[in-house]
Amino acid sequence: MMPYFKHDKALVADGAKIGEGTRIWAFVNVQAGAVIGKNCNICDCSYVENKAVIGDDVTIKNGVSVYEGVTIEDGVFVGPNVAFVNDRYPKSRAPWTMEGIRVKKGASLGANSTILCGVTIGEGALVGAGSVVVKDVPAFAIVAGNPARVIGKVGVDGKPVKGKNA
Amino acid sequence: MMPYFKHDKALVADGAKIGEGTRIWAFVNVQAGAVIGKNCNICDCSYVENKAVIGDDVTIKNGVSVYEGVTIEDGVFVGPNVAFVNDRYPKSRAPWTMEGIRVKKGASLGANSTILCGVTIGEGALVGAGSVVVKDVPAFAIVAGNPARVIGKVGVDGKPVKGKNA
Amino acid sequence: MMPYFKHDKALVADGAKIGEGTRIWAFVNVQAGAVIGKNCNICDCSYVENKAVIGDDVTIKNGVSVYEGVTIEDGVFVGPNVAFVNDRYPKSRAPWTMEGIRVKKGASLGANSTILCGVTIGEGALVGAGSVVVKDVPAFAIVAGNPARVIGKVGVDGKPVKGKNA
Repeated sequence: MMPYFKHDKALVADGAKIGEGTRIWAFVNVQAGAVIGKNCNICDCSYVENKAVIGDDVTIKNGVSVYEGVTIEDGVFVGPNVAFVNDRYPKSRAPWTMEGIRVKKGASLGANSTILCGVTIGEGALVGAGSVVVKDVPAFAIVAGNPARVIGKVGVDGKPVKGKNA
Repeated sequence: MMPYFKHDKALVADGAKIGEGTRIWAFVNVQAGAVIGKNCNICDCSYVENKAVIGDDVTIKNGVSVYEGVTIEDGVFVGPNVAFVNDRYPKSRAPWTMEGIRVKKGASLGANSTILCGVTIGEGALVGAGSVVVKDVPAFAIVAGNPARVIGKVGVDGKPVKGKNA
Repeated sequence: MMPYFKHDKALVADGAKIGEGTRIWAFVNVQAGAVIGKNCNICDCSYVENKAVIGDDVTIKNGVSVYEGVTIEDGVFVGPNVAFVNDRYPKSRAPWTMEGIRVKKGASLGANSTILCGVTIGEGALVGAGSVVVKDVPAFAIVAGNPARVIGKVGVDGKPVKGKNA
């Protein structure tokens, strides 16, 4: 018996490593070299490519493609239709240079946000929905806009911090 | 015989309420508590969650997830890859507070737009493609940008209104 | 034997024209009147509508809907979750006017970008990830932002050109 749940309409290639308690939903495709931790929730129409790495307790909402070079640490939330980039100058059917992304522990990426390659999202940071993140985001920062800029600070509970030293 | 059309590759859970004449296309997933009205068109890779409510004559294009707390009234158009938010401060595997969205009668949401939680889109309004809507949109307004701002007015036919009182 | 590869979970309607060496991946839906050239890569959860036209050597990443009226020339790269618009004033269940898009030879559209109808993306141009393109993009221009503006120039290799005449 598998230690994780796989929806009948999900595809999980032999060789993918998936932790106990993780749930893989309909129309998801997990490739052979992917690594997914424990107690994750990988929602409909998402995709986890060879060499993508996802930690424990991660939520990936619908329509997210986690490509090679993307590392998602424990406790990260990825909203619906978030897009990760792993090639700065994409060109069809040409040689390319992989440039990774790291989303650190406990960060949350709002719906439809876009994360450029080469970027690190700091621990616990909150990326506002619809943002386009083109440079590193400090730990516990809130960023928003296109391009995304720091607009506030969150606590370890993910709620905004107010006041003089926020 | 079902009063609605379900593509062979769509998933519709027992208990979902779906009106006559509605069409549910491939790789769509409609959960048990979802309510969808009559003569709707729910396109490929979309998702309708428990407790989401969709009226009559609604078009949901490809890749849209309609989550719990989202209410879509009659005659609304939702473009491809539109994202709805129902949690202001998402955090993986933590308690959360649902905050809804209402899209009023006859409004249209452009492709890839992002609608923040707590927002009401007014009757007949037009949200430009790629916009990020962070506050209420007045009836028959056209909004665009990130964050979205009012840039014009539409008539009941959905076409821009010009002139002094527009 | 088919001259192209179709994943077991892809849908390709009879009548679709698909060139030699093209690969159609899981949860993709290609409609009867679609035309796709040779050596293309059409990735998971994408959709190619009747009368959409895709040239040779094109890459369409995950979650992209190529609608009627969209013409994609040879060698174009379309990033994940890119959205094309083919109706300026969409209205559910109302008559509409199709307005096309042309993406010229060798152009690349970054992840999550939105291309408004009526627009031509020039040869070899690079649309930054998350951009919203509302007007024509010159050949070999780099555009970014919402709305997208020209921010640089690329060479035929797709890499930025620097210096006085760039």
